[in-house]
Amino acid sequence: MNPIMPNPPRLAIAGVTGAVGQEFLKLIEERNFAFESLKLLASARSAGKTLSFLDKTYTIEELTEDSFDDVDLALFSAGGSVSKKFAPIAASKGCVVVDNSSAFRMDPETPLVVPEVNASQIEHHKGIIANPNCSTIIMNVPVWPIHQAVGVERVVVSTYQAASGAGAAAMAELEQQARDWVRGDPISQELFGRQYIWNLFSHNSDIDPETGYNQEETKMIQETRKIFADPDIRISATCVRVPVLRAHCESINLTLKNPLSEAQAREILAAAPGIRVADDRAANKHPEPLVASDQDDVYVGRIRDDAGQAPGLGLEMFVAGDQIRKGAALNAIQIAEQLVKPIAG
Amino acid sequence: MNPIMPNPPRLAIAGVTGAVGQEFLKLIEERNFAFESLKLLASARSAGKTLSFLDKTYTIEELTEDSFDDVDLALFSAGGSVSKKFAPIAASKGCVVVDNSSAFRMDPETPLVVPEVNASQIEHHKGIIANPNCSTIIMNVPVWPIHQAVGVERVVVSTYQAASGAGAAAMAELEQQARDWVRGDPISQELFGRQYIWNLFSHNSDIDPETGYNQEETKMIQETRKIFADPDIRISATCVRVPVLRAHCESINLTLKNPLSEAQAREILAAAPGIRVADDRAANKHPEPLVASDQDDVYVGRIRDDAGQAPGLGLEMFVAGDQIRKGAALNAIQIAEQLVKPIAG
Repeated sequence: MNPIMPNPPRLAIAGVTGAVGQEFLKLIEERNFAFESLKLLASARSAGKTLSFLDKTYTIEELTEDSFDDVDLALFSAGGSVSKKFAPIAASKGCVVVDNSSAFRMDPETPLVVPEVNASQIEHHKGIIANPNCSTIIMNVPVWPIHQAVGVERVVVSTYQAASGAGAAAMAELEQQARDWVRGDPISQELFGRQYIWNLFSHNSDIDPETGYNQEETKMIQETRKIFADPDIRISATCVRVPVLRAHCESINLTLKNPLSEAQAREILAAAPGIRVADDRAANKHPEPLVASDQDDVYVGRIRDDAGQAPGLGLEMFVAGDQIRKGAALNAIQIAEQLVKPIAG
Repeated sequence: MNPIMPNPPRLAIAGVTGAVGQEFLKLIEERNFAFESLKLLASARSAGKTLSFLDKTYTIEELTEDSFDDVDLALFSAGGSVSKKFAPIAASKGCVVVDNSSAFRMDPETPLVVPEVNASQIEHHKGIIANPNCSTIIMNVPVWPIHQAVGVERVVVSTYQAASGAGAAAMAELEQQARDWVRGDPISQELFGRQYIWNLFSHNSDIDPETGYNQEETKMIQETRKIFADPDIRISATCVRVPVLRAHCESINLTLKNPLSEAQAREILAAAPGIRVADDRAANKHPEPLVASDQDDVYVGRIRDDAGQAPGLGLEMFVAGDQIRKGAALNAIQIAEQLVKPIAG
């Protein structure tokens, strides 16, 4: 059992200047997440800058080994190497870290949590709780209730991922490319090394030379198995970046262990937490990145019995979720909310 | 046996002002497709306009019942209702129609042809040969050689379709939206009824209220079965429009009947007609719409053994093909080239 987290906690945000760091602040305000004190941490480059938040002006501090001496809860989103170095230091000082990087996700000692799926894992932490990959979270929220109901044997997923997953600079480059294109200027392509506007490309994470899978795909496969506590679930993933700014979509095809009608699937999804069903066949209103942007819920639509499998044993859906929000900052804040919750009973 | 097509034929293009019609002209020039005479047909609205082609000026004529009296071969791309009305009239006058619309594709009397797959069907025509749907063609070219080699039991495909599939006006609207966005103007959205730039959406064809499949998906399923002459092949399709101008991508997951190693698959694909393998794991160079645009070949990459299926029995790939070219005009021209070919032997 972990020591009880003070409520409100002394809070820190590591990587506050990034897209996810900024979203942490938005969500803390929106959800009235109470804190005793707030420390905003970033690299030396941003240290000393000031930031207004909730009628107070904060000075951004450099993230160092001493940053966590007076912190109970830290939200990390400053990249894998920063997490690898500083999260264990914070934990050793009694601070609980909710880490947005991939550094500890597959560590057997570290809970990997999507609150709609495995919130109960949170209490087993040893100082660090990992926030899953954005594409994993957006897939897990709708697949889990189906898995609970009838068992999912196999998932085939293809993603349509936004620039936001590569950070604020990637979003800015995509926007700049639109301006370049309209003005007839040469297309800026420093970050992705290619024209992104009017284009799409295989996800920009390293590809395993042996298996041919990129890291994003491997994360979706391995993390889902850990979160579902089901090492046998079979997953085929293809991850692709599309010229969209901030919400990810996924085309998900399921093979079910036990039959489920489309009507039952729809009912289960509509009742599940964190999901909004958007599935209007007549008006062709289904999940779209612009609809899901800045929203907490994962949008689920195109729900249909799969024509390519035995009736009731295949299910198709198309989903959209805000990559920065539910895919990152919101999921972490939900974990933090559980941490400060008074123990029931 | 059909009467022998004169070579060179008296040629007509119905729908010459559209995106595919214009591509017909480009390809006729590029491929030195010989013709005795050329008639350019369009709706009354375009009739009388002139068009320069191969150092000659042509006057566009209105498509009428009399248009085909002196025509041996007609390439149609003027929409389903025009084909439905005029293709049988043309055929009744001894003209052979290569029809780009969906009007006759599933007609049992009409061959539906992807030359790389079932060119032998061409000679069985009764005056009309149907050109398949663009997404079908782009999927069939790489899936067929694998199907021939080991048998494909099941296909799960998710598309990333360009604006071009909805015609030149759709491409213009997407481009205009970029200009609107850059200028901060309200986003023009007459055609698709939604913001398309920075967005994506379920394919804009009607959705069957019962099955939940849209027409584009149903075409991919039914047409592939007809082209492969395999009514049992199981296909799950999800069709999506992405903010890309003119080439379609598809994420294709195959379940194989007999084992095939990744190396064997790569070899088969590299040797197959109409395919260019683009699969550089180290540099992350894989099929992209901008790379495939204006190219004849379907680009195939991300070739890998599927981690979610038994080794050797699942194959994943990501493909890109120019929707206007191989997805429409080029495929039709290839059929026309077969038609005028002197009989071998």
